[in-house]
Amino acid sequence: MTGASPNLVASVSRRHPEVDTPSSPVVHFDTGAPLHLACQQDLAPFSIAYETYGELNAAKSNAILICHALTADQYVASRHPITGKPGWWDNMVGPGKPIDTNRFFVICSNVVGGCMGSTGPASIDPKTGAPYGLTFPVITVGDMVEAQARLIDYLGIDQLFAVIGGSMGGMQVLEWASRYKDRVFAAVPIATAAWHSSQNIAFHEVGRQAVMADPEWSGGNYYAAGTVPKNGLAVARMAAHITYLSEEALHRKFGRNLQDRSSLSFSFNAEFQVESYLRHQGSTFVDRFDANSYLYITRALDYFDMRESAGGVLANAFRGTKTRFCVVSFTSDWLYPTRESREIVQALNAVAANVSFVDIESDKGHDAFLLEEPTFFATVRGFLNAAAMKRGLGSPEARK
Amino acid sequence: MTGASPNLVASVSRRHPEVDTPSSPVVHFDTGAPLHLACQQDLAPFSIAYETYGELNAAKSNAILICHALTADQYVASRHPITGKPGWWDNMVGPGKPIDTNRFFVICSNVVGGCMGSTGPASIDPKTGAPYGLTFPVITVGDMVEAQARLIDYLGIDQLFAVIGGSMGGMQVLEWASRYKDRVFAAVPIATAAWHSSQNIAFHEVGRQAVMADPEWSGGNYYAAGTVPKNGLAVARMAAHITYLSEEALHRKFGRNLQDRSSLSFSFNAEFQVESYLRHQGSTFVDRFDANSYLYITRALDYFDMRESAGGVLANAFRGTKTRFCVVSFTSDWLYPTRESREIVQALNAVAANVSFVDIESDKGHDAFLLEEPTFFATVRGFLNAAAMKRGLGSPEARK
Repeated sequence: MTGASPNLVASVSRRHPEVDTPSSPVVHFDTGAPLHLACQQDLAPFSIAYETYGELNAAKSNAILICHALTADQYVASRHPITGKPGWWDNMVGPGKPIDTNRFFVICSNVVGGCMGSTGPASIDPKTGAPYGLTFPVITVGDMVEAQARLIDYLGIDQLFAVIGGSMGGMQVLEWASRYKDRVFAAVPIATAAWHSSQNIAFHEVGRQAVMADPEWSGGNYYAAGTVPKNGLAVARMAAHITYLSEEALHRKFGRNLQDRSSLSFSFNAEFQVESYLRHQGSTFVDRFDANSYLYITRALDYFDMRESAGGVLANAFRGTKTRFCVVSFTSDWLYPTRESREIVQALNAVAANVSFVDIESDKGHDAFLLEEPTFFATVRGFLNAAAMKRGLGSPEARK
Repeated sequence: MTGASPNLVASVSRRHPEVDTPSSPVVHFDTGAPLHLACQQDLAPFSIAYETYGELNAAKSNAILICHALTADQYVASRHPITGKPGWWDNMVGPGKPIDTNRFFVICSNVVGGCMGSTGPASIDPKTGAPYGLTFPVITVGDMVEAQARLIDYLGIDQLFAVIGGSMGGMQVLEWASRYKDRVFAAVPIATAAWHSSQNIAFHEVGRQAVMADPEWSGGNYYAAGTVPKNGLAVARMAAHITYLSEEALHRKFGRNLQDRSSLSFSFNAEFQVESYLRHQGSTFVDRFDANSYLYITRALDYFDMRESAGGVLANAFRGTKTRFCVVSFTSDWLYPTRESREIVQALNAVAANVSFVDIESDKGHDAFLLEEPTFFATVRGFLNAAAMKRGLGSPEARK
């Protein structure tokens, strides 16, 4: 295991040999290059799995880092190796799309603590030869960004043209812009917040308790036990999923429609369509996600509080920034409501940052950032085009 | 077992001999007087446990029926036999209080399907000699009202002066006003809705799945198994509890305050106060509530749709009403938002009902109806006083 730098090695591995989709490249950082975590522990060795799209230009000035949300991964615009579904932002990222891979080199990496190739609680602890489980250190959103920064170093990129992400991805964008002011030319935090609210923490705690209540969770050692806490994780996903949709969206999609009967059955079957939908969300989730990763990543989100980290004044986190910001919120998002984006904008204004703020009228709730929202797409495309001009990347080629 | 009527028997039993608080009177309706349910099954025999406060006047014209919410019970203004806590509406009901037991005879009964003395899934099925469990028929809010009507018959009351309730209690109020137009002089539906929304159903389904995912639930036969699905029921309660509070209330009460540490512990302990609070809500609930009752009552709520029952036009449910209505909502209630109360008011207006509507400014969320809210208390007191004058019950005595 040797590589370009004495303390890291890049290699390509196939994590899911049972599927014919190639898995991601993985950069391995060995014990000589630990990730120093907020909890003061060092994580070493560690790996970061990532996908890239498009070509890095000679000046290495056209790279866009996309940061994923809680349960997403690096497969932003390529087929998911487990579900076989298109990438989670396939409508946003690709040739000619708002994040245009004909112009930009797009990178998306699985967060540390995740379960799609980056080191997380399901990874083998070299000290024991067994999966970490709950001995994995508690990580933060800042730790995720530090791990990404190591990947960006490895790729030889000094400054990212843009860092973009929604939800937890937006929190990483804010951390990038705060921690690496010279390395982020443009930043697009979407449907996000600068700290996790009491209600946000409450919903996550319900999910964690659901997982931990499942006897198959086995105190986090289910890998050894050969079990999977499917029921608990499904309940957690169901509860969380409600927060991703607006009341209006649920009403429009399902209302009180019955699943497949013309009248009530007076039973506990999934009788209403919304019940069936939620059960499906729960049961499909457990096939692709590690329960302990869910615990660790929700914990990282709950710990997220940039205001606190900045000594109680959020603006301090951005003092001296030259980054161009485009803050995007959605009117019906009740997980991270518009007012929380406005607080970010106010903090940026307080330090005279270059910031535009777009609150997009949508009744689709938090998940609007993953959906076909023309105004949103136009906003991202327009902002990136203008920023690319400023960055000397030229104007977009005419394209049909 | 004989009584005033050939097919019912009243007796007083003590359900919780281990506590020194007297338990409620229970009316037993025997097999000759079945409760015909919406599911077309007959429930017989069945029992209704209830509490009363104050004195019924000679004309039997001063009775107020209070309908309880999902997890409440008949102990509206008396000490709870299990928790030892004051009644759930102790601030509202009592001598000199807004619902003044010096003037009114107050009745509150445990709903059918409940677990505090009325027949429910934990009751013995006389056919088998074992608890019903999931063989108990699925009940509706209408069924709860039919059972209450039998109790009111038994008490010899033709017309209730008022029917009052919040949340699920408000739904019962609406059913009473619709089904028994001549038996309800005044109605006060509070923090409620005329049908359960898709989001309401979704949250309940999460709770039910959490209970059913608990192996100790044992397919609903945990009584025989000697287990209690505590973990699942606690998770269900935690998820539901979030919907009872506004985001603002959670923020004001807990914010991101830590439980008992000055800095983060980087663990999965209940580190934030809101986590500890929710865990407490979950763990105390399971001591006083039957998990199957939780399934049945949430199901009844999900089935609730007075518009559908009225042929698609809610107003039809109230056509011909002479009842005086006072509809109350709270501005920060996101479980049954103000707009859902407004739909009730519009339906009542459409049939020229006597209705007043008070939307109370509060940041406390759905649970505001259980809390010390001066405007709310003044509203209920004022409405009841005015209605009492109309009913010929005189004006309230001067009282310090």
